[in-house]
Amino acid sequence: MKTEIIAVGAELLTPDFQDTNSLFLTAGLNGIGLDVSFKTVVGDDEADLERVLRTALGRSRLILCMGGLGPTEDDRTRETLAKVLGRRLAYRPEIRAAIQERFRRRGRPMSRSNLKQCYVIEGAEVLDNPNGTAPGQWLSLGRRRVALLPGPPREIRPMFEELVLPRLARLHRGAMVRRVVRLTGLGESAMESRLGPFYAAVPDGVTVTTLASPGDLAIRLTYRGPEAGPGVEALDGLVKVIERRLGAFIYSRNGESLEQVVGAVLTEKRLTLACAESCTGGLIGHRLTSVPGSSAYFLESAVVYSNAAKTARLGVSPGLLAKQGAVSAAAARAMAEGVRRTARADLGLSVTGVAGPGGGSARKPVGLVYIALARARGVAVFRERFFGDRAQVKFQSSQKALDILRKFLSKGRRMAL
Amino acid sequence: MKTEIIAVGAELLTPDFQDTNSLFLTAGLNGIGLDVSFKTVVGDDEADLERVLRTALGRSRLILCMGGLGPTEDDRTRETLAKVLGRRLAYRPEIRAAIQERFRRRGRPMSRSNLKQCYVIEGAEVLDNPNGTAPGQWLSLGRRRVALLPGPPREIRPMFEELVLPRLARLHRGAMVRRVVRLTGLGESAMESRLGPFYAAVPDGVTVTTLASPGDLAIRLTYRGPEAGPGVEALDGLVKVIERRLGAFIYSRNGESLEQVVGAVLTEKRLTLACAESCTGGLIGHRLTSVPGSSAYFLESAVVYSNAAKTARLGVSPGLLAKQGAVSAAAARAMAEGVRRTARADLGLSVTGVAGPGGGSARKPVGLVYIALARARGVAVFRERFFGDRAQVKFQSSQKALDILRKFLSKGRRMAL
Repeated sequence: MKTEIIAVGAELLTPDFQDTNSLFLTAGLNGIGLDVSFKTVVGDDEADLERVLRTALGRSRLILCMGGLGPTEDDRTRETLAKVLGRRLAYRPEIRAAIQERFRRRGRPMSRSNLKQCYVIEGAEVLDNPNGTAPGQWLSLGRRRVALLPGPPREIRPMFEELVLPRLARLHRGAMVRRVVRLTGLGESAMESRLGPFYAAVPDGVTVTTLASPGDLAIRLTYRGPEAGPGVEALDGLVKVIERRLGAFIYSRNGESLEQVVGAVLTEKRLTLACAESCTGGLIGHRLTSVPGSSAYFLESAVVYSNAAKTARLGVSPGLLAKQGAVSAAAARAMAEGVRRTARADLGLSVTGVAGPGGGSARKPVGLVYIALARARGVAVFRERFFGDRAQVKFQSSQKALDILRKFLSKGRRMAL
Repeated sequence: MKTEIIAVGAELLTPDFQDTNSLFLTAGLNGIGLDVSFKTVVGDDEADLERVLRTALGRSRLILCMGGLGPTEDDRTRETLAKVLGRRLAYRPEIRAAIQERFRRRGRPMSRSNLKQCYVIEGAEVLDNPNGTAPGQWLSLGRRRVALLPGPPREIRPMFEELVLPRLARLHRGAMVRRVVRLTGLGESAMESRLGPFYAAVPDGVTVTTLASPGDLAIRLTYRGPEAGPGVEALDGLVKVIERRLGAFIYSRNGESLEQVVGAVLTEKRLTLACAESCTGGLIGHRLTSVPGSSAYFLESAVVYSNAAKTARLGVSPGLLAKQGAVSAAAARAMAEGVRRTARADLGLSVTGVAGPGGGSARKPVGLVYIALARARGVAVFRERFFGDRAQVKFQSSQKALDILRKFLSKGRRMAL
């Protein structure tokens, strides 16, 4: 069945909108064997929205429409769809009770503007929203299905997973199996060159797409067929081929993030980690602590941005900093050793570099980064040169540091602490 | 004139596609006073693409269609548009010469598959592509204009800027002025209630949209008219009205991030800052150091995740941690004082809380966060309760901490350090 995702909201048509909702919905649809055929973004002009809804009803059997269910003047999705369908909006007192209860728990009165959220298109089922005031709606129109969903990610995601996907799974039979191999440490064209002959081995029913961003690559394998079993087998085989060609660069075989992978190994090996961050500014700590349960292995990160902090917190000698500079192999080494010692951690991981856009020189250009990993038996220091803007240099530095840690941990048996 | 961006390609309908091209095009269009009304994404199914092109020709006067101009089998944009328009494709030997020259420079022969790229829709102007093999095409269809553009960012961006934008600027005269007011510390519906009567004062030619996420709100004002001058005046007036209604919650009047705003004031006042982060895990340091020049005021962040680190780095007493817990007003206070003292900073900012999903209890639920700001004259401690997942609790905690700092700094004259 042709599936269309519609996103409604003027802000979605501005230059700094980042779409994540439609990707989340797509992943869920794919998981039950449904592909997306069309994605449409429209603002809050009612005539435009009306056109988009009419077009979608003419070409798609499943329409997931998100946004425009809020309490404000420019939220017009439910009114516009009702108009397109020639149906009335019905007041539902139980929605008002739920919204009032939500405000009560937060110690605030319900606002008058929320009243419009209590109206539902005639014939629609209400999709409860425990995470916001806007309930969703589910409509059966002959063989077509339309879901109206709220825009905020924390509202639409649970609603989609708990209330929409089960309804769709009942309607649609078929399987999709997906594997995501993630890599770091090589460029996209290098990956393509090494993969080259691999593409010829991809069997019918499997599609391969690759996605590249600075510091991160993903190879996505998708199988579509009547049953999951043969898909799992086919994809396992393809992953093995990718491993033979690109093994050293692969950090995950099922989509996990690098911080999840590193965290799982540290937990399993009962090792503790402390970081010393200069140019990454806390990003490594932030990434590590984005994983629930990270307190089991992550002790601390000393974000020693100033030279004084490098000395006071980690014992990096002022002479070293004056002579070799804060961006140097010696400084990285002293930071990693220093944080390992002072934090009493099994492992110390440090990063120091020039994130840019200022601060570069001929000898130490923007993007020059030193990374060190300290363990009881010594320190390993790595020199890297990254390209891109400040955010990209920070991300690539954090990625490389975590990958150095991952590689060290994967050699655990041979390489003593 | 209604403008539509169409993106063509199967990979654009997968769960990990990140759209950047359309944002780039939108920024350029906005710069010459053109809004985008519709964005459509479609895969490489020819019937679907045909439908999408017909729909666009029916509702939009300017259509920018990107992707599907490559040499492979599934690149069908030029053939499909020719079919929809009932026009033939014409062979252009000069394109073949350009592609051959491109391959020659790289020491490779031109591939046969590139031959299809030498065909142009009858009546179209060719848009040269110095960065790839696929030339663009520019069609005038009565009052409508259609551009076919290549998909890769490094090909479409220069082509759009150098060949498409100048053509559009000649067609379209007008100006767009935009202001973004950003706020934190109140919910969307509370903002709407306070803004309520404001909407009635919005003059013709100005549109207002709001964007909400946990911990952050934006009010986006857009003026469109023949000249920029009256727009600047109108938007300045509206920003003043918003300030009267929501002043305390506004952190920026021109789209700057909270970390940029705080950084600018710290720089101006020549104050230094050190942070002590527990549940935010380094996110505050990461945000502060995402601003170029942050080394002028940001000394360090002690990401003291473990209790041992809180004690060793910041002198938080083990007795306090044992008795009141790491998530307590007393711990936040001791962390802020401790980091201020040990980092020799003017200001110490601390955060400690339960990020979840585990670790909560009846007395200290997930989302409970304490924030403290230490200065020479004493410490202020704030208790907050946030809702959402781990990432959202972390973000809202960092946002609240930075906003507390911003508010303190804005009172600078009255409130001595």
